[in-house]
Amino acid sequence: MSKILNDGRIQSKGYAMLSKDSRFTPYEFTRHSIGDHDILIKILYAGICHSDIHTARSEWGEAVYPCVPGHEIAGEVVAVGKKVSKFKVGDYAGVGCMVNSCGECETCKISQEQFCQKAVFTYNSVDIYHGNENTYGGYSNNIVVSERFAICVPKDAPMEKVAPLLCAGITTYSPLKFSKVKEGTKVGVAGFGGLGMMAVKYAVKMGAKVSVFARNENKKAEALQMGVSEFYTSTDKNLVKERFDLILSTIPTPYNPVEYMELLKFGGELSIVGLPPYEVAPKISVIDIVYNAGKKVYGSMIGGIAETQEMLDFSLKHKIYPETELIQVHEIDKAYENLTSGKAKFRYVIDMTKEN
Amino acid sequence: MSKILNDGRIQSKGYAMLSKDSRFTPYEFTRHSIGDHDILIKILYAGICHSDIHTARSEWGEAVYPCVPGHEIAGEVVAVGKKVSKFKVGDYAGVGCMVNSCGECETCKISQEQFCQKAVFTYNSVDIYHGNENTYGGYSNNIVVSERFAICVPKDAPMEKVAPLLCAGITTYSPLKFSKVKEGTKVGVAGFGGLGMMAVKYAVKMGAKVSVFARNENKKAEALQMGVSEFYTSTDKNLVKERFDLILSTIPTPYNPVEYMELLKFGGELSIVGLPPYEVAPKISVIDIVYNAGKKVYGSMIGGIAETQEMLDFSLKHKIYPETELIQVHEIDKAYENLTSGKAKFRYVIDMTKEN
Repeated sequence: MSKILNDGRIQSKGYAMLSKDSRFTPYEFTRHSIGDHDILIKILYAGICHSDIHTARSEWGEAVYPCVPGHEIAGEVVAVGKKVSKFKVGDYAGVGCMVNSCGECETCKISQEQFCQKAVFTYNSVDIYHGNENTYGGYSNNIVVSERFAICVPKDAPMEKVAPLLCAGITTYSPLKFSKVKEGTKVGVAGFGGLGMMAVKYAVKMGAKVSVFARNENKKAEALQMGVSEFYTSTDKNLVKERFDLILSTIPTPYNPVEYMELLKFGGELSIVGLPPYEVAPKISVIDIVYNAGKKVYGSMIGGIAETQEMLDFSLKHKIYPETELIQVHEIDKAYENLTSGKAKFRYVIDMTKEN
Repeated sequence: MSKILNDGRIQSKGYAMLSKDSRFTPYEFTRHSIGDHDILIKILYAGICHSDIHTARSEWGEAVYPCVPGHEIAGEVVAVGKKVSKFKVGDYAGVGCMVNSCGECETCKISQEQFCQKAVFTYNSVDIYHGNENTYGGYSNNIVVSERFAICVPKDAPMEKVAPLLCAGITTYSPLKFSKVKEGTKVGVAGFGGLGMMAVKYAVKMGAKVSVFARNENKKAEALQMGVSEFYTSTDKNLVKERFDLILSTIPTPYNPVEYMELLKFGGELSIVGLPPYEVAPKISVIDIVYNAGKKVYGSMIGGIAETQEMLDFSLKHKIYPETELIQVHEIDKAYENLTSGKAKFRYVIDMTKEN
């Protein structure tokens, strides 16, 4: 039960890293009060994203500690502000990577809030709308968020699957839509981990002819079962005769993007969503860009709120979910170890139902 | 007068570099005979492109010597093959960077012949359709070319201006069309040399609102006279508040492409046509690509034959020409020196009219 303090602030209990190499520790803190347009969500499930690890370990710049990660949040609305219209108490709601933005700039106007210069991210971010407080994420029992940034989730949705959709789902859905994937589009998905699998499921459902590029054949059977037409390993790459409209790279380790540019049709696109560690991230020379003239490279970063809602509706309608493994709060450290060593097979989702 | 030898081959006289650091020397050679679909062109003018220098000096891989550069060719048709339909003797014709291609592959079918795996370039290229002969370019008194690769030029065209259009013109026209520049498009042109000026002229005529990014203010007056709205120098770049639909980089020296990505709108495009020397060419990290999500980077390399004809027609109709300086054959070495040292102000065009 989330407790509202005398000053209106919300008592919260989360799991935090206290320094870049600490273990997770129970951590009590407060969240800002429920404004007129805010909702209070009792968190049921929180997905673990690889970017949680990079952030909490200060691999993407120095984090603020204690650090409570988590931007794949699914839960139940337990209180609403006076002017809230999208939710009522008892509804289910989701929260992804953002909790606020200015609402007025060019990118907010087209619901690409993730590019707003004044966006507030779900954790380890400065909340300029609430006294520059640090934000704490979903490895906790509740969250307060503007209704604009909460996603509507029907009551019959499988909530432990909804959580990871809010990052892994939108991250792969968005570029497929941006590149206008439709019936017959030839799509290649490079990297066949959590993101790659989601990309394949969406692209197949959109009617694309989908090929996978993976490091080895370990997951070939799974890929074929998902409706993939061709499964290539890295050593096949030079032999590939196909040419693609879109190749989506979800690869989080060093690789050569130019090899994928070479597999595009004239007018084709290489979309990059995988983020290798900074110091080993591949670079593309403008020479290679010109030698692969007429092929476009772009990055994609999560997606806007309107599109996140669209993705969730699409996912539920077509029963497109990530493979998940439910863990308890004391298993977060072990999950991080498995993710780092490549041992994790599925998306970890933390069961927060017992924390409320 | 071009002489046809007993075996049908064409006697030619050109100007060649004999090694990567030699001066230009008169060089006699023969060209393949006039096939059924070929035309023989008496060359009147040949433009000097910076890529001639890179190639002839073996800066882009080892050249074949003697090397006769030149892929900006304007001249008069003096003989036609039996099945030629596009030209008759006495017509004017132009030849750009290519002289042949397979005609059957996916890129040939959409008239993007420059990407054909079997394309033959105008000089320093292996002509697989004629016994793997090396090709010799436009610094010569004639050329034999398939009519498919010859551009129709009306008799009242200013031929010394037509020559450089066939590379500098199409190189800048093509990406503007590829990015669908039209009335009101916000275009930035980075680099204000020969290519940059052509890009500005085309973009203005297409109705775009054009800004220039230059190293300094030396050519600001010229830019404004061409219809440019804003003229920024490198030091202004951080201050630029505008966001662009397209930025066309014609910069041939080291620079940071990411600074231009940051100036694009969501969905905007950075098109790269300038080619710095290989060893100092800038590279773009995939991290920067993802951080500038939703902005596309692509290269453009000359253009196909159909579009080259379209560009020439557009240029003549709107009187869009490069600034040129006519030189004689004994001045080629000096022109190369000026181009290398940055002293060249205009596009050099070699007067070949006295060589025939």
